[in-house]
Amino acid sequence: MSGNINQETLEQKLARLRKSIDNMDAAFIHIVAERFRITKQVGQFKAENKLPVADKGREKEQVERLRALAKQADLDPDFAEKLLNFIISEVIRHHEQARK
Amino acid sequence: MSGNINQETLEQKLARLRKSIDNMDAAFIHIVAERFRITKQVGQFKAENKLPVADKGREKEQVERLRALAKQADLDPDFAEKLLNFIISEVIRHHEQARK
Repeated sequence: MSGNINQETLEQKLARLRKSIDNMDAAFIHIVAERFRITKQVGQFKAENKLPVADKGREKEQVERLRALAKQADLDPDFAEKLLNFIISEVIRHHEQARK
Repeated sequence: MSGNINQETLEQKLARLRKSIDNMDAAFIHIVAERFRITKQVGQFKAENKLPVADKGREKEQVERLRALAKQADLDPDFAEKLLNFIISEVIRHHEQARK
């Protein structure tokens, strides 16, 4: 029976950790959704004022800042940068659609 | 001069929106960092208990749940899914390293 009890504890531990991951994911999705609400405003603003869609100087600053924040939070800065680039490329795609 | 004043206001508006994006990014990075702290525990736990690294059933549930949350938050569910897959693939890479 002790094997069974032990097995149940393992499942409970995994369920507990997964619940925390689910909470992080919900927070994460809502932050990304809010970020897109703001970048949508930036996209409309840029389209109205005929400003270029991409801004390499701004992107460089964002990357440097996020890498520093990631290091402080003990997150791989290369991964943080890849993740930001993934999001920015989607934002630029949206900006280009807004322009059309 | 009115052209100048107007230009300044445009810059101020862009700066205001960008400050909000920067705040979202800082929140986002900290949530992702915390998510990795938890998935690291899951990875160690799986390695210790010889559980498989990937869990397709769990991943399917996560994707379904996140797509529903994304829709509620007015975020493209396809993009939310791509973003989650991007993060999960990095997590699985970490789990495989933990196993070695």
